[in-house]
Amino acid sequence: MCELLAMSSAQPTRLSVSLQILAARGGSTASTRDGWGAAYYQGLDLALFREPTAAADSALAHYLETQGPMTSIAISHIRHATRGAVTLANTQPFVRELAGRMHAFAHNGDLPTIAGNAALSLDAYRPVGQTDSEHAFYALLARLRPQWSTASPPSLESRLALVSAFARELRALGPANFLYADGDALFVHAHRRIQPATGRIEPPGLWSLQRHCPSPVSDSENATTPTGQTVTLIASVPLTDEAWQPMAEGEVLVLRDGEMVAREISTAH
Amino acid sequence: MCELLAMSSAQPTRLSVSLQILAARGGSTASTRDGWGAAYYQGLDLALFREPTAAADSALAHYLETQGPMTSIAISHIRHATRGAVTLANTQPFVRELAGRMHAFAHNGDLPTIAGNAALSLDAYRPVGQTDSEHAFYALLARLRPQWSTASPPSLESRLALVSAFARELRALGPANFLYADGDALFVHAHRRIQPATGRIEPPGLWSLQRHCPSPVSDSENATTPTGQTVTLIASVPLTDEAWQPMAEGEVLVLRDGEMVAREISTAH
Repeated sequence: MCELLAMSSAQPTRLSVSLQILAARGGSTASTRDGWGAAYYQGLDLALFREPTAAADSALAHYLETQGPMTSIAISHIRHATRGAVTLANTQPFVRELAGRMHAFAHNGDLPTIAGNAALSLDAYRPVGQTDSEHAFYALLARLRPQWSTASPPSLESRLALVSAFARELRALGPANFLYADGDALFVHAHRRIQPATGRIEPPGLWSLQRHCPSPVSDSENATTPTGQTVTLIASVPLTDEAWQPMAEGEVLVLRDGEMVAREISTAH
Repeated sequence: MCELLAMSSAQPTRLSVSLQILAARGGSTASTRDGWGAAYYQGLDLALFREPTAAADSALAHYLETQGPMTSIAISHIRHATRGAVTLANTQPFVRELAGRMHAFAHNGDLPTIAGNAALSLDAYRPVGQTDSEHAFYALLARLRPQWSTASPPSLESRLALVSAFARELRALGPANFLYADGDALFVHAHRRIQPATGRIEPPGLWSLQRHCPSPVSDSENATTPTGQTVTLIASVPLTDEAWQPMAEGEVLVLRDGEMVAREISTAH
């Protein structure tokens, strides 16, 4: 099944260790051989790397583990194709410009009826691939567009309200774990996921881990700078032996500079 | 100064040798240390690699030389910053979705008054960076948008007429060599460029080289397959000792599958 990974940090850093573990799962230790991708914010733009092949065998993925861009917001995805062919166009994360800055999205789940859902229309956005996940991204951007008149972000409250309402609609269609970033904040929505232990589709859909690292100086995600470092990681399954926290069903987290700055848990599933 | 490189080929191949030569010029043998990028079409989508650093020192550029994606259309750019800071957002090629497929653009020249030119408006497109080149791309896409109702390309004639008319307007603003691809065809516009020998801004703005390779089998751009290979390369300066042909001032070439399929030379400069 697909796997998600995201990072928010106080100081720019690399996705090194976690990407390495995730890539190893993408093709060698798990059934996710159909593609992988990672998006790294650099200002209003982002560097995007994707391949429609197994991450575990990828020289590019290995390059990124040790020499990838330094960033404060990263989103990564390992694909097990359910809808759409194994092509670059169907490989996440998806990125698009809105209001003079890049927005990024990755989804884990299955939304079989989204294309026919009149309430989740795409407006002017045209998919390049065939996945339910790309459709979901453009439906979200179509909703967000009226809020974004300039490259200056709207209030966090208005963005969170919109993302949470959108997430609630997606949950009605199927498993809808997603990561969405606008270069200012990282929005994380957890829902349900096939649990290997039980084979059932149930929470948690995502896990979170916050690391505070006062020292020593290094350039990995475990790292810090003289002013200190805080990193929050989000993943489909705990990637290390640390104290990962399961997210609740329907929970939306907003991360900035490695810290949780807002949170909403829907009472209606 | 900036340098452009493009490739159109009958069979998917790598940009290996030419990218290597171009990258070596980006920072070590020329004054182009401010960034580099390469876009490789894969179906309607493309893989884009960019860094706001010197290509000659780049581990990623070296990776692409030997292990980059196989493609039939590639566009590359080495940057010497003239307008806009040294950031990822100002690093070419620029890519955007139009009509459900990706379009790519790279420009070499200087268009100081483009932002104030009412005839070259951006419509709904919002730049992420600050360059004249990104502005030129969106002005072109805004013109093309009415032609592109679906992901099926409009006629080559209508696209060439529009690109040629657009190129004529750019030439009035300053040096306007550019590469533009829509995944179906590669459009090349040559104008004027600072010539190292004379220091004057004059033609040729670009050079072309066609290679026919019946054998042997290999996976570089010099390569062929059992059914044969034809590759056309476009570059700001001849990259090898082969018989590169200078393009005329105001010439627009259209390449598909390694062959020139249309050409227009403007009589008015």
